[in-house]
Formats: sequence, C-alpha cells, structure tokens
Amino acid sequence: MPAVHVVRFEHQNTVQWGVIRQGRITPIPGEFATTGDFIRQNSVEDLAQLKGSELAESEVKLLSPVTRNQQFVCQGANYRQHMIESGMDPDAKKFNMIFTKATSCLVAADSVLIKPRSVRFLDYEIELGLIMKRAISGAVSVTDSNLHEFIAGVVIVNDYSARDIQIPQMQFYKGKSFRTFGPVGPYLCLLGEKDMHYLKALQLRLTVNGQVRQDDSTANLVYGPAETLTELSSVQDLDTGDLIATGTPAGCALSIPSPAKQKIAALMSEATKWKLFLKAQESRPQYLKVGDVVEARIRSADGAIDLGVQRNRVVGEA
Amino acid sequence: MPAVHVVRFEHQNTVQWGVIRQGRITPIPGEFATTGDFIRQNSVEDLAQLKGSELAESEVKLLSPVTRNQQFVCQGANYRQHMIESGMDPDAKKFNMIFTKATSCLVAADSVLIKPRSVRFLDYEIELGLIMKRAISGAVSVTDSNLHEFIAGVVIVNDYSARDIQIPQMQFYKGKSFRTFGPVGPYLCLLGEKDMHYLKALQLRLTVNGQVRQDDSTANLVYGPAETLTELSSVQDLDTGDLIATGTPAGCALSIPSPAKQKIAALMSEATKWKLFLKAQESRPQYLKVGDVVEARIRSADGAIDLGVQRNRVVGEA
Repeated sequence: MPAVHVVRFEHQNTVQWGVIRQGRITPIPGEFATTGDFIRQNSVEDLAQLKGSELAESEVKLLSPVTRNQQFVCQGANYRQHMIESGMDPDAKKFNMIFTKATSCLVAADSVLIKPRSVRFLDYEIELGLIMKRAISGAVSVTDSNLHEFIAGVVIVNDYSARDIQIPQMQFYKGKSFRTFGPVGPYLCLLGEKDMHYLKALQLRLTVNGQVRQDDSTANLVYGPAETLTELSSVQDLDTGDLIATGTPAGCALSIPSPAKQKIAALMSEATKWKLFLKAQESRPQYLKVGDVVEARIRSADGAIDLGVQRNRVVGEA
Repeated sequence: MPAVHVVRFEHQNTVQWGVIRQGRITPIPGEFATTGDFIRQNSVEDLAQLKGSELAESEVKLLSPVTRNQQFVCQGANYRQHMIESGMDPDAKKFNMIFTKATSCLVAADSVLIKPRSVRFLDYEIELGLIMKRAISGAVSVTDSNLHEFIAGVVIVNDYSARDIQIPQMQFYKGKSFRTFGPVGPYLCLLGEKDMHYLKALQLRLTVNGQVRQDDSTANLVYGPAETLTELSSVQDLDTGDLIATGTPAGCALSIPSPAKQKIAALMSEATKWKLFLKAQESRPQYLKVGDVVEARIRSADGAIDLGVQRNRVVGEA
C-alpha cells in the first residue's frame, strides 16, 4: 500500500479534508476541528481505500493541513552546512537546538509572504515537518522501529525568518513568528510503517524566481526524528497533530562569519558587532524582496512521496 | 471598587472558578474550558458583586488559573540588574527579548518542582504574569490609557530554568520547558481600569528555604506591558486568556561574567568556554537542590492586590 496524501481545503464555504490522487480530491466524511482530531479519527489504511465523488484541486482553496491550535516546535541548525553558514562549528555544537514559532504564522502553502516594514533581511528556510500521530505525556524511547507509532506523516514547512531580528535579538521566536512566516503544506503525506524509511531520503528543493537556492536530502539531518522525539518527550508534552519542523539545509541568504572570525568580532562593542553583521547582510542579494516568488518542493526520488509545491510571492506590508 | 481575586480549583471532582476574599471562595456559576472562556464570560464588575455559598480555601485543590490551551509567551532580560547577572550590558541591549515555554510546564502554585536527572543547575525566576483580556489579530497601539482593554489581570509565574541547558544551547525554550517548570497562581487578580497603575508598583519577593533571594518592584521593568503588547501585536496573534511573563529581577543563582570578561572567553574554543561556564556555576550554592522550598509572593504595598503565595518543594525525578 502506498503512502496516502491528504489535503485540508475550503469548498462551498465549508472546511473539509480529502485524499488527493493525481490532482483529484476525494472528500473524507466528517468534520475535524484540529489536525489532531483528523488524525485520531482516520487511519491511513482506511483512507487508502476511500472512494467517492471527486473534486479537481483547482476547484477548492487549499488550507494549511496543520491547524493553529497545534504546537509549532522547531529544530535549529540541524544540517551541517547550514550550521557553517550560520556561523557555527558543527563539531562543537553537540545539542539539538529547539525553539518555537507562534502558530498565528501558519498559513496555506500558496499564501503571500508579507515582508513587515520593520524587517530588512527576510530569508527562506525549507524544512521537512513531522506531524505527531499520538500524544506524549512522559518520557518515551523512540527508535526507528517504533517511529511509526509516533509520526503520522510529513509536510513542507517554510520557516521564514527576519534575520535582522532573529540573530541580534538572540532568541529566534520573534524574528520567525511574523504573520505569514510559516506556510505549511499543501499536502500532508500520511505514512504507514513500511514508508518510514522515506524520512531519511526525502529531497528538499527551494527556488527563488526559478533559481535553485536550497537542494539537499533529509539523509543529512543531524538529529533525526527518533532521537529528537526521545529527548523532547523527556521535557514536554506533545499532542496528536502537533508539528515539528526539522531544520533547514544550506543555501539561505544568511551569512555569518566563521567561529574564528567571530572571535575578532567578540572583541568589539555589541553595537559595532551588530552594525558589521547588518553591513555584511547588505552584500547578500539573496535576501527576499517584494515581488520575489519562492517555491519549495519535497519528494522522494521514486515519486511515491510528493508533498506538492509551496509558492509564496513576497508582498509589502499594507 | 477594589480589584477582584479569582481562583480555579477542583472540588468534589469538578473544576470550577471562584472569587476569593479573605481565604473564602464563592464559586462562580458556569463551566469554562479555558482561561479565555472564563474571561470572556465574566466581567470584573459582576464578579465584584458575586454573592453565594462559600468554601474555605483549605477545602479545595487550587489549580493554575491559566489553562494549558493558552499561549505562554515570555520576556527575557527585562530588569537591568538581572541583565547584568546574565552577562549582558543593559545599555547595549536595545530590544525586547521574547521566547516561549511549553504549556505542558504549567502547574498549580503549590506543585512540586521536579528536578530532571539530566539537569545540574536548576534556577528560579519570579515574574509578574499578564493575562490577556481580548484577542489581538493585527497591529494595535497600546498605551497606558487603553491598557485596561487588553490586560484582564495578573498572576505570579515562576519561570524555572535549567541553566546548563538554557544557556549553552542558546535557545531558551528547552531549558525552561520541563514539566513543572511553570507554576502559575494561586490567585488571578482581575484589574479594573482604575487598578492599572498597580502594574508599575507590584512588589516581587522570592525566598528559598526562607532566605530572601529576589526582592524588587515592577517599577523597574525595562519594557512595560503597553509597549510590549504594541510590538507583539505587530508580530503575532494573541488570544484572550494568554499569558505573558514579564521577566525576572536580579537574585537568581545564575552568574555569567561581564561582557568585558566574556571577550576573553570568546577567544577560547566553544568546549572550553562552556566548561568554564559550568565550572563557574558549581561555585554558586544558590542553585536549587532536592528538598529546597521556594516561595514566591507578589503584592501591592497597600495590600489591595495580593496574588498569594507559590510554594514549590524540589523533588528528584522518579
């Protein structure tokens, strides 16, 4: 049985879920207030068998498959090359960096990206998002062999980031939480036990105005899903339907000097250090401008898993 | 009309809310699934008039007045002296640092504090918590004169922190999100328009085993509620009942060298730098040990506002 791709969508003023196959959507009976409710009440086996009337994808408005009443937990610096461009030494960082984004930044995959007036350096970050299959309320040991009990499926996440706020203000939350900074979807691919191996072999590819900027595989994740869930479960609760974004590969606009050069910057005053940081970003034409179009895709090489295309046009703040 | 103090509690296996006056609780009719529902459906004016049968505080089990389905947003480094002990230069930090704690750490004010096995340096942080009165879904301008439209009331929060995780791992979320690391309450004081001036004159006092460790006034907050809400509203949505913890004053166990001394540490390898950081914490007897009892109180000098006493005994992880 292949993995099942589902969508959440609006059609004739009602929000529904559906199975999507070759651009045709079979609506799933029932109403689900949260992603958690949807996952608890539908099994991948039943959905794979679902038959019924079909809608064309073009007839509906696709929504984020993650609802705003779920948690949005993120891993940072989880690909070696992205660590280096972020000014970290991959061999010195020995921890799984965790932060959150405000859930009000969750939007549909084809949403515009609003560049706030106060933000100068707007960056993209394609990431694989994991969707929780069950709730966790205490420490559990998650391994590759029981991972299917914990992960329901995967989505594309773009962890848009205002670098001039995120980096100088030390805590990532604010600079990554602006409204529209978290497109999710379009497709949620529900994985069966036999599909779990794909988590280590998904191709991530992001373009800006058609030019490839990020192109990597989840094979290169530093902290994988099993060890991440094991550690997180010892800290906090997770609910069915919660979203964990697993970090972005190299290719962002952000450029931070190597740890060696940072030792020199550390001797400067805070004000001088951040002035130089902002100056360095000015020389990076990769930062997003109004009118740019960002496209993000995640799929397996064999095409069995295809999370669709996110397409975000950058617009100015009204 | 004085400010009204309310509690959320369990009595005879049902969760209720009540007005508390001199240790006696008058139950409030109705069921409220979230703090937001409670605030939307009850006005401080009506509650001030509430009459009915009473329960003694000792007859009930008090719960956190903030439910776990609300946001838990935090300000960091928001008192000058705490910035200095945290290794920051208050004159160089020109931003309102924002992060979150996982809501699964929210517990009742008299909860035990579980010291995780993996945590060596467990610290306390008394903070004034603000509870949202209305939802915000776009940029608003909040001033001292309209603040009463946005803030429903105040609570005590203890932002317990595992320093050996929070500081070396750069993002605060994980080290501050362990289960039981966020006691809230016992009392939620609902403020009328005329009580808003108290936000700038509340006394915070925290003791460990009876010894005073933190003792300051909200008069010394760097970023006050109005400017914080104005900025946050330009970033993210907030819902009625959401909690904003406003940062802690000086007196924590944490000790980080001054920015000048950090310039020397910056020349070391990452590994050496963090080894020295942990070594420095070892010499701080203020860190919490199993058996310690932490008490936190917040009140106005005139006694009109008294948020009660939090009392947390530190226990080892089972």
